[in-house]
Amino acid sequence: MTTLLALYRRPEGGDDAVETFRRRYREEHLPLVAQTPGLRSTTVQETTAKLMGDDVILATRMEFDDRASLDAALASDAMRAAGKILREIAPGLATFLVLEDAPDLVGGG
Amino acid sequence: MTTLLALYRRPEGGDDAVETFRRRYREEHLPLVAQTPGLRSTTVQETTAKLMGDDVILATRMEFDDRASLDAALASDAMRAAGKILREIAPGLATFLVLEDAPDLVGGG
Repeated sequence: MTTLLALYRRPEGGDDAVETFRRRYREEHLPLVAQTPGLRSTTVQETTAKLMGDDVILATRMEFDDRASLDAALASDAMRAAGKILREIAPGLATFLVLEDAPDLVGGG
Repeated sequence: MTTLLALYRRPEGGDDAVETFRRRYREEHLPLVAQTPGLRSTTVQETTAKLMGDDVILATRMEFDDRASLDAALASDAMRAAGKILREIAPGLATFLVLEDAPDLVGGG
């Protein structure tokens, strides 16, 4: 599996700005993401506590079969439209990472 | 489920610094994390491409039954020792977030 991890920092403008971001993320962005070809699953999680570091308020994990499927998805009309919404609702606030399991960094759980 | 998401930015010092971080993360930090009480699973993933935003090189997801289990884990000797290692190998580079599923932000996958 190849993971596309999206992290969103807190927008300026207090609770109203966060609420507007959440509403447009839900109503405009996620429906487009859902149409992305090759997307196996999407998990949206909210930060309930920041213990250390950057003020990320939302983390979305999108799973694909492999890097080729992810690249095809990124080039799709759905993902391009979803990205356009993001540039409006989270300008300069988003981090997008392609993640792969690290074979030598085996977790303990 | 409650997720503890750890994000690590790239250390200064080039490839050597990254390799030292990875080695000590694997040899010193992860074995302590594995001893954490209540930890249901650990997934360590590496960034293979940064598409946008912050230069995060490693993302580790630790799953717990609920927030109470996570809080107990954070207070455990194992997690405290693991945190001590992190302050040595990733000073100022780590972000730790408590994440919960967002009921109204349903993913599309």
